[in-house]
Amino acid sequence: MGESTPNEIHAAFDDPQYRAAVVDLLAVITYGEISAFERLAEDAKLAPTLQDKVALASMASVEFGHVGRLIDRLERLGADPYEAMAPFVPAIEEFHRHTAPADWLEGLIKAYVGDGLAADFYREIAAFVDADTRDLIIASLDDAGHSAFVVDRVKKAIQTDHRVGGRLALWGRRLMGEALSQAQRVAADRDALSALLAGGVDRPGMDLAALGRMFTRLTEAHAQRMAELGLDA
Amino acid sequence: MGESTPNEIHAAFDDPQYRAAVVDLLAVITYGEISAFERLAEDAKLAPTLQDKVALASMASVEFGHVGRLIDRLERLGADPYEAMAPFVPAIEEFHRHTAPADWLEGLIKAYVGDGLAADFYREIAAFVDADTRDLIIASLDDAGHSAFVVDRVKKAIQTDHRVGGRLALWGRRLMGEALSQAQRVAADRDALSALLAGGVDRPGMDLAALGRMFTRLTEAHAQRMAELGLDA
Repeated sequence: MGESTPNEIHAAFDDPQYRAAVVDLLAVITYGEISAFERLAEDAKLAPTLQDKVALASMASVEFGHVGRLIDRLERLGADPYEAMAPFVPAIEEFHRHTAPADWLEGLIKAYVGDGLAADFYREIAAFVDADTRDLIIASLDDAGHSAFVVDRVKKAIQTDHRVGGRLALWGRRLMGEALSQAQRVAADRDALSALLAGGVDRPGMDLAALGRMFTRLTEAHAQRMAELGLDA
Repeated sequence: MGESTPNEIHAAFDDPQYRAAVVDLLAVITYGEISAFERLAEDAKLAPTLQDKVALASMASVEFGHVGRLIDRLERLGADPYEAMAPFVPAIEEFHRHTAPADWLEGLIKAYVGDGLAADFYREIAAFVDADTRDLIIASLDDAGHSAFVVDRVKKAIQTDHRVGGRLALWGRRLMGEALSQAQRVAADRDALSALLAGGVDRPGMDLAALGRMFTRLTEAHAQRMAELGLDA
């Protein structure tokens, strides 16, 4: 939608399908943050030291810190935030059920790789919404630089025991696979969201070739993150 | 210590026992917040609705939000924050082990009554430290008004089923008893903290009568909180 003035935003929200798509998008991001908070807080229990526990709990708190503003925006769009989140609960919970970390390192990688992937994905989608919504989404994806500590811990663990690397590389691939399969499930279920990506008469969208390029960008960024951790993608 | 200028603060910290007491005090508050975060995040799982879960997770995040600044201050005082916290881990963990909530309502009351009691206690102690330390402590005890939701939920539950009130009143008494017994354990173990309360040549302190009055204030405030919840203390 490019640069938007307040007028354009208002006009966009006059289209009920556009409004529904933005509500869906903000709702899935909100529940994703709530759920990430829960999992990070849970995984913090596996921390080998109090310092590591504080670092992971910080990541959890940063995620949760975005929830209030997202809920406010959903309310201002006339949605019940909790009803709006409900359709996304099964897919996100299913993702977490299928990717429960077996130990501290798996939890760290999930925090880093999973959040990174989600952030990349939502940033791609944010290109198709009005400037206000986009700014809110981008701000909500900020991890406050906490993930640097994950890179440090995982690299050290691999230096200490090289065999760890193979297991964790497999784990990273599993995270990517589960994320894609749940994202596909959400896209198939939510017509307004799919329509947003497809575009409309007065709104640019993605054709299949563009979707393919987006998918390539997401997998390349994932591979880049794995490499930063010292792992094969 | 009354109003302090930067000079006075510096002078106070020249006394190694005063510095040790402030490090102890900030460390026990810091670990208390980390631990409260963990328990609230855990108890949020018991929430009957997503809205309730978000409310309790917000309380957890607010608690954790104070941790960064406390850790910074400990470092500026020349302490290793994690070493400084270590002596307080057993008492705080023991408190939580003895007060694991059996259900959502017990968790809510623990969040409200436990945090309230801790905040009152640290506020009392803050009267005996320099203004900078006191400001940091008071700011760290702010619950951002989240506890109003606890009062609402507990009152509604008692209105729905009057028998709940008796069980929850007993639970409140148990929380108070466990908190006092762990506080006593900490006070007995940490000479610098006890000395801070006792005062010194150039520092006002509490005699036994003053300690008794503080205890009375704490129990009165506890009874007040229980009454706000609609429970006998």
